[in-house]
Amino acid sequence: MRRVSIYDTTLRDGTQAEDISLTTEDKLRIALKLDELGVAYIEGGWPGSNPTDKRFFQEIQNYSFKNAAIAAFGSTHAHRGTAATDPNLKALVESGAPVVTIFGKSWDIHVTEALGTTLPRNLELVGDSLAFLRPHVKELFFDAEHFFDGFTANPDYALAVLKKAHEAGADVLVLCDTNGGTLPGDFRRMVEAVTTALPGVAFGVHAHNDSGVAVANSIEAVVLGACQVQGTINGYGERCGNANLCSIIPSLTLKCGIACLPEGKLPLITPTAHFVSEMVNQAPPSNQPYVGDAAFAHKGGIHVSAVVKNPRTYEHITPETVGNARRVLLSDLSGQSNILYKAREFGFDLDKNDPFVLELLSTIKEREAMGYEYSAAEASYELLLNRVLGRARSYFTVTRYRVLDDNVYDRAEPITEATVMIKVGGRIKHTAAAGMGPVNALDKAIRKALRGFYPRLAEMRLLDFKVRVLSGLKRDDCEPGGCGTASHVRVLVECGDAAKRWVTVGVSHNVIEASFQAMEDAINYKLFSDDKAKLTKALKG
Amino acid sequence: MRRVSIYDTTLRDGTQAEDISLTTEDKLRIALKLDELGVAYIEGGWPGSNPTDKRFFQEIQNYSFKNAAIAAFGSTHAHRGTAATDPNLKALVESGAPVVTIFGKSWDIHVTEALGTTLPRNLELVGDSLAFLRPHVKELFFDAEHFFDGFTANPDYALAVLKKAHEAGADVLVLCDTNGGTLPGDFRRMVEAVTTALPGVAFGVHAHNDSGVAVANSIEAVVLGACQVQGTINGYGERCGNANLCSIIPSLTLKCGIACLPEGKLPLITPTAHFVSEMVNQAPPSNQPYVGDAAFAHKGGIHVSAVVKNPRTYEHITPETVGNARRVLLSDLSGQSNILYKAREFGFDLDKNDPFVLELLSTIKEREAMGYEYSAAEASYELLLNRVLGRARSYFTVTRYRVLDDNVYDRAEPITEATVMIKVGGRIKHTAAAGMGPVNALDKAIRKALRGFYPRLAEMRLLDFKVRVLSGLKRDDCEPGGCGTASHVRVLVECGDAAKRWVTVGVSHNVIEASFQAMEDAINYKLFSDDKAKLTKALKG
Repeated sequence: MRRVSIYDTTLRDGTQAEDISLTTEDKLRIALKLDELGVAYIEGGWPGSNPTDKRFFQEIQNYSFKNAAIAAFGSTHAHRGTAATDPNLKALVESGAPVVTIFGKSWDIHVTEALGTTLPRNLELVGDSLAFLRPHVKELFFDAEHFFDGFTANPDYALAVLKKAHEAGADVLVLCDTNGGTLPGDFRRMVEAVTTALPGVAFGVHAHNDSGVAVANSIEAVVLGACQVQGTINGYGERCGNANLCSIIPSLTLKCGIACLPEGKLPLITPTAHFVSEMVNQAPPSNQPYVGDAAFAHKGGIHVSAVVKNPRTYEHITPETVGNARRVLLSDLSGQSNILYKAREFGFDLDKNDPFVLELLSTIKEREAMGYEYSAAEASYELLLNRVLGRARSYFTVTRYRVLDDNVYDRAEPITEATVMIKVGGRIKHTAAAGMGPVNALDKAIRKALRGFYPRLAEMRLLDFKVRVLSGLKRDDCEPGGCGTASHVRVLVECGDAAKRWVTVGVSHNVIEASFQAMEDAINYKLFSDDKAKLTKALKG
Repeated sequence: MRRVSIYDTTLRDGTQAEDISLTTEDKLRIALKLDELGVAYIEGGWPGSNPTDKRFFQEIQNYSFKNAAIAAFGSTHAHRGTAATDPNLKALVESGAPVVTIFGKSWDIHVTEALGTTLPRNLELVGDSLAFLRPHVKELFFDAEHFFDGFTANPDYALAVLKKAHEAGADVLVLCDTNGGTLPGDFRRMVEAVTTALPGVAFGVHAHNDSGVAVANSIEAVVLGACQVQGTINGYGERCGNANLCSIIPSLTLKCGIACLPEGKLPLITPTAHFVSEMVNQAPPSNQPYVGDAAFAHKGGIHVSAVVKNPRTYEHITPETVGNARRVLLSDLSGQSNILYKAREFGFDLDKNDPFVLELLSTIKEREAMGYEYSAAEASYELLLNRVLGRARSYFTVTRYRVLDDNVYDRAEPITEATVMIKVGGRIKHTAAAGMGPVNALDKAIRKALRGFYPRLAEMRLLDFKVRVLSGLKRDDCEPGGCGTASHVRVLVECGDAAKRWVTVGVSHNVIEASFQAMEDAINYKLFSDDKAKLTKALKG
């Protein structure tokens, strides 16, 4: 079985993304996860460029890796100096990394305009830098920056740079589409030109996604013989990002029969993608191929009934092979089969003639007609399911709440006060709180009332909420202007604790009431799911 | 210059995405924007499947389109009935859409397992359905569902389905990669097999992104002769989404010399992408090719200095050609071209050295940093423009408002009361009103205060509002639970009168305050635009 090496540059090129900055500790944690996943190379950073990266290469030597070799990144030496005296190359050697990758210019306008030197001098920079590094490192790679733009502008020169790098001892010549502007057809023709001009020479690919084809181009390069693929987890990187390894690795493994990771590691790709997105503090895109939450989520009723009969009908691979899972969404497009499937997910194996199912179906139909939407609010659905089944206890009852929102225009911010009356443990708790807006004030007041009874609510955080006005405005029914703001609103609240995240829903004419319903569900779900977890544990033990 | 037709299915396949559900009004607004962009076809929905879509096709007949033809979507008739008696096909004809697209099975296991009929019978379904529709429509397209999986499993049958559809009168055979699992190499081979088997027959492409190569495959198909590309704005769609038209259109236009839109429309692609993301209430991915906020954002120091010398060094295209702008992070040039572009739309031809532009720029930068988003709220932008220019008079001043929201749980609905103090015509008006929710109550109170002075406000209706929590929650900064509900919210309000519709924006920690700001803008815009119309009329007369 053919193998290609995965060269991960999340820690270097990935950190060029606008909102991403990593501490040395973050980088170490990510590196360990990448090694566990089984990539061949982890590019840790540019030791010459900043202290974080310098420290990373010192710290990393205290760890041992099972699969990955650590690579240090840098550039060819400055054109006014020599390789031997270049601080940048010195830093690469001192980093102690067994693998070094340097980039050099292969596009003539970059040599003359960006670098400000001559074409022959740039060839010397490439040759001398690699020759200097060669004896100090186990493996030496050359990134031909802007190779594809360079080849388009001046093919002879672009190839001359590659030849020079090869002669000077680079183990792999990496063809970079640095601006990400090359479309697959041109990309293939240029890769073929390289394999013709330099037969048998090992080459790799480093693609950016500015045209949305970085994954396709990377796969094409492998099909044409590339032995190394450079990219990042979740496709992080400057501008539109780098080639997304979370798409490339499964496609090569499952569809091209090309091994990228050690045997049995592919199911780690989804958890790794989510781990890295947590580290860089960005929500993982749910529609990401293979590893996204929605990658195997089915909404349309037709799709669902077909998938239940035979998953292949609407799934290109088995979700478990990449550590992901099938999800069936409930929505107005959905039929009975969705609901039964969903119930099964929560541990209820129901027959569609079971009277409980008929009650559940009618309850859900009713609530969906009122505007409740469970496809995004699975926690509310699980609660509903257990309530209809009589399995969820009531943790508290709200008897009244009030919100006063007061905005005087010479004050900076409006003032909001909420009061709540909650019956819990047979007692009425009456609390008040001020907040930034009505929902926040209510949130604080209700927590105040409950925290004495349920201290673990302190672990729970409200992470996000979404509000949307529901369809079917009946304009004839409303006095002028009344309708838009009088129509039903749906609120989705997302909460989380150390262990999980969950989404709940509320619907009302009143945005405050809808938010309050969703928060009530969210708190109930926290208490309910904790109890369920305890129970499961007890039964196991 | 070669042309391909862009077939947008945002309103149909796009709404299969997990978190997307659109009202009929949303769909109409998006359709108008797509027509302005200049796509050839807008697939409005599946009239047979749900009331929202049915209403869309009724309403859409009240609008006239400059560029786009409206298409209705459906399936081949049920295998137990006939085309003539099929309610689904009947609904397609009754939709009144000039273009109809139906999908049929071209993968044998789908015929036998999902559909539960025989391979020959499925050929009849395809033939009879198309033959039945042919006389009723101007253009008739056939989506060969799962064509690529079907061809892989049983090439003769997949081609037989295409031949049957062609003979039965389909104008274009659309090759669908419904599961999105086909990689470019296989994709090309199969498209070539089609062009060999059916020489000269018009074909199109409909790709899904489950392998991250939908854009690449769509472009490959066009290179191989496809005359129609189906996809969605921002790549919305079930699971990993559909082929992203915001990537395909610029690539084909700027890199393949293939026209997709009317002359001069390409710069509308970025505003359109942002408008649709506001309509579906999802943050636009900043790293999206061509149209993302970060698509031309430069961070690395080397990149920045090179870009300043020569943009080509790190930009594959000129951002302005797609209505986007270069962002050199930590520079104040951001968005200028967008701003000037928009200003031109409102009749201000501004020079970027005009001091007014600099003031406008800094004001907009300030407000965008606060979370104001003008791509969807053009009325607020036009007001801002005219205020900075000193051309918009102030019609009233709000000095104070209060909202009391009271929910007693043995009452059916919470009670909301709003009081407003407004200075208008030198007098203070103090009014109170009850409403269905705080925003509705405020809406009524403010109208009560103003109607004596501005009777024409009675013509104005609030049609819709949307609320979005702005991203970037810094979790460490918040007490437990505080953060989600304390973060900034953006409210978009849409209003209309007999003549027009307009959207305004408000931003605050407080959803009520944000809604109130947007309503204030909406009322001001109604008064301002009426005055402007009167003035223009007077000048003409």
